[in-house]
Amino acid sequence: MERFEVYILGCGSALPTTKHFLSSQVVNMRDKLYMIDCGEGAQLQFRAMKQNFQKLNHIFISHLHGDHCFGLPGLISTLGLLGRTADLHIHAQSDAEKLFAPLFQYFCKELPYKVCFQAFNPGKSELIFEDKSLKVTTIPLKHRVPTAGFLFEEKPRSPHIIREMIDFYRVPPSQIRAIKEGAPFVTGEGETIPYTVFTRPAEPPRKYAYCSDTAYYEKVIPIVAGVNTLYHEATFSSADLARAKETFHSSATQAASIAKAANAGRLIIGHFSARYPDEQILLNEALEIFPKTQLAYEKMILKV
Amino acid sequence: MERFEVYILGCGSALPTTKHFLSSQVVNMRDKLYMIDCGEGAQLQFRAMKQNFQKLNHIFISHLHGDHCFGLPGLISTLGLLGRTADLHIHAQSDAEKLFAPLFQYFCKELPYKVCFQAFNPGKSELIFEDKSLKVTTIPLKHRVPTAGFLFEEKPRSPHIIREMIDFYRVPPSQIRAIKEGAPFVTGEGETIPYTVFTRPAEPPRKYAYCSDTAYYEKVIPIVAGVNTLYHEATFSSADLARAKETFHSSATQAASIAKAANAGRLIIGHFSARYPDEQILLNEALEIFPKTQLAYEKMILKV
Repeated sequence: MERFEVYILGCGSALPTTKHFLSSQVVNMRDKLYMIDCGEGAQLQFRAMKQNFQKLNHIFISHLHGDHCFGLPGLISTLGLLGRTADLHIHAQSDAEKLFAPLFQYFCKELPYKVCFQAFNPGKSELIFEDKSLKVTTIPLKHRVPTAGFLFEEKPRSPHIIREMIDFYRVPPSQIRAIKEGAPFVTGEGETIPYTVFTRPAEPPRKYAYCSDTAYYEKVIPIVAGVNTLYHEATFSSADLARAKETFHSSATQAASIAKAANAGRLIIGHFSARYPDEQILLNEALEIFPKTQLAYEKMILKV
Repeated sequence: MERFEVYILGCGSALPTTKHFLSSQVVNMRDKLYMIDCGEGAQLQFRAMKQNFQKLNHIFISHLHGDHCFGLPGLISTLGLLGRTADLHIHAQSDAEKLFAPLFQYFCKELPYKVCFQAFNPGKSELIFEDKSLKVTTIPLKHRVPTAGFLFEEKPRSPHIIREMIDFYRVPPSQIRAIKEGAPFVTGEGETIPYTVFTRPAEPPRKYAYCSDTAYYEKVIPIVAGVNTLYHEATFSSADLARAKETFHSSATQAASIAKAANAGRLIIGHFSARYPDEQILLNEALEIFPKTQLAYEKMILKV
């Protein structure tokens, strides 16, 4: 099946530890790379995971807290040193350009490529990127500052050809493409055969959702319903629920409740507070509600 | 002897690799910490070296290239999260405040401490910091943008007391401090004994110099003459001298020539270009000119 993977570059929360890097992930959709958030050190982890900077054309920033975007200046600068010429798109709230563009202008004077800021409104769910194989939609979240998660949806793929039927009806190769797209085949005898005879349906499109940072927020559920993989922040344990509320973060139990209500294929929890030396406590909480839960870790590779 | 150490947090050049972090060091002078340069990831390495953020009060930035200062926003933000209240001083060129202050204002709104930018002029050697045990002087360097290195000089220490002489003359403990500072002692019989009888001279003050980034620049020599430890950039091998000239960097041979002319106690070379998978080639070049040379590496601890 076509590649659709997620690489965890960092899954710690605001305070970096010796164990975790700051928030950043890369979605690999058919060998095109999309970065989600770009905490300090993201470019180091990208390189440590042996990913190709040339395949990265879009960066999506969930919100303007430093632990989700302070890696941008270094990454932008490195792409320039590597001789990039293709435009790079940064999808973020409108303040991002105001804040980072002066830095890029000063520090990356001879940048051989263009940085294009694409502002989105985190207050409503909207389609912010689309190409022939992928759609990216925002997921409004509930945090101390305007924040949106991202839903990565594969577009429906063409059905699979049943070789035996092609041979049986002696379909010329030139017509196979049209049949995959739904055209009927007319035999030498004038008989019309519908495309469904020659094909079996493709696997259903896969979906990945990233929800960080956010308090428990039920409005997320219909947007992420049925995703194959849900990454949801679980900064705190239920024992620290008061702190979670105060800081607009989620507990592991809350993350699992969202995954359960959304009927997710599996849940990956991350954005761990530095206060838990052993994150098993977070995992155990989530497992009670939603058994298909895993802890995120640096350099984790998820097949969506 | 009182602690005077340097910790290498990163010694790579502009393009980060899987081997090296970006430029940053910490000078530990009698358990007070001073950071020199703050490339992306400096705070992660600081933590990985188990250093105490509370002991850091001054950061010195050599020049405004991203690989020497993009770690500042993350570090400033982390110090805030850790509840710092003491002022933090950033010694850098005047543009630094203009560039970084808007970021701090936006991202670190509720910072419980004050960030004080202290501008210096990199064009001339000047004393920019002094306390009772340390002096920091700038070292004008020759780079593509205004750049200064830093000379860390221990202040002369008081002489050591010779216990036997104190006992012999029955000097009361209350007078020992004055004697250490050079006062004579008058005996019960009215005899005046000079302090030199009671003391032997302290070790000569130690000096550490940081010279990065810079082309070969002989004006550095008199300023760093006699330092115990010299850190000098050696971005390139002599085989790439043309590239070194073009980019205003030094070769390993040139770094060693400066160390030799300055009669340094030892030379540490760093700021390695990513093009050398084996830095032994740089070390060998330097060793030919100056045998007391070592390669810098991440988490290296230097006793000055």
